[in-house]
Amino acid sequence: MSANETLDYESVHKKSAKRFTHKEYLLMGAGPTNITDRVLKALSMQCLNPISADMYEIMDQAKAMLQYVFQTKNRFTLIHQTSGNGGNEAILLNLLNRGDKVVIAIGGTWGEKVLDMAQRYELDVLPLRKPPGEVYSLKELEEAVKSHKARLLFVTHGESTGGTLQQLEGLAPVCHKYGCLLAVDAVVSIAVDPLFVDRWEIDAVNAGTQKAIGAPPGMCLLTFSPRAEKRMREQKKRPPYYLDLLPQGVYFDCFDGESRTYHYTFSANMLSAVREALAQICEEGLIPMWQRHKSNAEYFWKRLDEIGLTSFVEKRENRFHGVTCVNVPQGIDQMDFLRYVKQKFEIEITPGHGPTLNKAMRIGFLGDNSRPEIVDFVIEALKDGLQHFGK
Amino acid sequence: MSANETLDYESVHKKSAKRFTHKEYLLMGAGPTNITDRVLKALSMQCLNPISADMYEIMDQAKAMLQYVFQTKNRFTLIHQTSGNGGNEAILLNLLNRGDKVVIAIGGTWGEKVLDMAQRYELDVLPLRKPPGEVYSLKELEEAVKSHKARLLFVTHGESTGGTLQQLEGLAPVCHKYGCLLAVDAVVSIAVDPLFVDRWEIDAVNAGTQKAIGAPPGMCLLTFSPRAEKRMREQKKRPPYYLDLLPQGVYFDCFDGESRTYHYTFSANMLSAVREALAQICEEGLIPMWQRHKSNAEYFWKRLDEIGLTSFVEKRENRFHGVTCVNVPQGIDQMDFLRYVKQKFEIEITPGHGPTLNKAMRIGFLGDNSRPEIVDFVIEALKDGLQHFGK
Repeated sequence: MSANETLDYESVHKKSAKRFTHKEYLLMGAGPTNITDRVLKALSMQCLNPISADMYEIMDQAKAMLQYVFQTKNRFTLIHQTSGNGGNEAILLNLLNRGDKVVIAIGGTWGEKVLDMAQRYELDVLPLRKPPGEVYSLKELEEAVKSHKARLLFVTHGESTGGTLQQLEGLAPVCHKYGCLLAVDAVVSIAVDPLFVDRWEIDAVNAGTQKAIGAPPGMCLLTFSPRAEKRMREQKKRPPYYLDLLPQGVYFDCFDGESRTYHYTFSANMLSAVREALAQICEEGLIPMWQRHKSNAEYFWKRLDEIGLTSFVEKRENRFHGVTCVNVPQGIDQMDFLRYVKQKFEIEITPGHGPTLNKAMRIGFLGDNSRPEIVDFVIEALKDGLQHFGK
Repeated sequence: MSANETLDYESVHKKSAKRFTHKEYLLMGAGPTNITDRVLKALSMQCLNPISADMYEIMDQAKAMLQYVFQTKNRFTLIHQTSGNGGNEAILLNLLNRGDKVVIAIGGTWGEKVLDMAQRYELDVLPLRKPPGEVYSLKELEEAVKSHKARLLFVTHGESTGGTLQQLEGLAPVCHKYGCLLAVDAVVSIAVDPLFVDRWEIDAVNAGTQKAIGAPPGMCLLTFSPRAEKRMREQKKRPPYYLDLLPQGVYFDCFDGESRTYHYTFSANMLSAVREALAQICEEGLIPMWQRHKSNAEYFWKRLDEIGLTSFVEKRENRFHGVTCVNVPQGIDQMDFLRYVKQKFEIEITPGHGPTLNKAMRIGFLGDNSRPEIVDFVIEALKDGLQHFGK
């Protein structure tokens, strides 16, 4: 074998020869948020054999902390190795079979994606839509569940593309009256706004690692009520292998008497990071964390008002406290504005998406970044940007 | 809101209060392997917005290096955010629809899992099986493709559970004669044994990040020939959202003229680690890397012989050079033996699985761990273990 038998990698080498580094930013968009040094340290420990006592111990710790963060005693609480979208899809495909009836209450991009997933799987879907910035009343959701004879209602808790927070308290008991389960996308709302899985009787929840939890993206946090677990076990058809949550639950030691077995190769590095991020939340406490996000969001809204900017979501009671959609003043090109702020202040803000496309920018104070001094810094940057663009 | 409204986290706190750390091992099983400091450093850089120029630059670098490692000019070369199993499933579900005919040449656990995936998706499967330690002849595979009128042949290149290496050269042209595509699981073989995607005309390849590549698990490396890309675009039915590779290909800028769009949240941390791991390979060169794995495997076999241990795969030409299945001497309990070696030497070796269950242990020299001094250290540990257990 001689060297000239392989494709030349001259051009590749040029690209890779320089020692790798990349710029770091203050991540003030809809997530990922910045990761603390403590979590980055956990992430960069040496890898482990995924089927080892060392790994199981970290999984057990992470699961116990996750139950606290979800406020649940659900035994079927686990971590799955996909992004948040993968978690939503896993909920659908594990709880429903082809032709099953589902209501999806859409509030923006994330709900639209769940609708896409449901259609690919040939579910019988009733999609609900609302004007941007609005949320659903319990009555509206009950009507839809009842009329469609739905087996599942899928709701987005915090909608980062519309900036809204859907109220959930009281919804599950209504669903249960009609034999319907309640599934919640809490990808961006977890550890920001109150979520009581057991007290509110929610059946399935999917949460992200890269928002207020403060770990990198690439995993999702899931919990299922005994009612949902039963439904999952009764499904005639198994979902795709990689999205099959029951064997991943066995790996997470969720089910008494079933000994742990391998399902897919789970990352020790990511698990350790998530474990450490959850530990940070346990140490701060969930209630202080919710209060911190609420008070910093309110402080941000007050300061926005001072510099003449407004929220996309008019009614305060509908606003999510993690990500605020801020109207872009007439005459300013959003992308130019965000590029200016990024270059001058090294602050990354995400543009509008779905309901807020070309209308509002999405500014998030999530996890470690939810601090008054960061609010002040972002306000300073926005003010500078407004002046630069002549407003 | 008062503190006693939330579930108590006393027990959680006890588990999380201690500063987190975990033991580190020399990972000498079938993968994950040890990760170099340089890659761990890339992993633990701050996160990035997945839809940003900074991220796209790293993706472009990784893609160019991946094309070199795959020895391909395929434009549809990308990274997908699942484990290796998820990559195999994505290949099946993107290239085939319900009822389509596929031949799966099983060589151990990984092939059996692909069969499970195919059955869940209601494909029309012809599974092939061989006695443990054996591989398929081109003739056998051609017969199966022809008789089953298969649209896809799925083959495992390196089978870490049986310790075999399936020859691939000449196979794809035979498949193409019958209108059949060739898909290859190279999860564990990538950068260990020669693989020429273009020269051998392979249509779809899935490779792991946590084996010789030397990054953490959690992503898979994929490439598709123009023939496979065309097939994918012609499918009537789209696969599940999370496993849909065409939009992920758009995100990876694979298709001229289609501007990048978000598909799911891709991890900047994992991407950076994979990018840096690929850069290590580009710097060493692919041929030196293959030669290193081959010579260290042969050195290990020689030293095994000296201490009276034998390979599970008798024929040398059938042996995979990344992971060797070593017969456990009669009278020794494999799990006791591996526990002893782990405790005394901090070496992690994986037990047999599938064809080698309770028969052979799986010892891998992958990536940075493929070194003569590590071979010597492992031999010393095995010798000590044999003495300890009275052999």
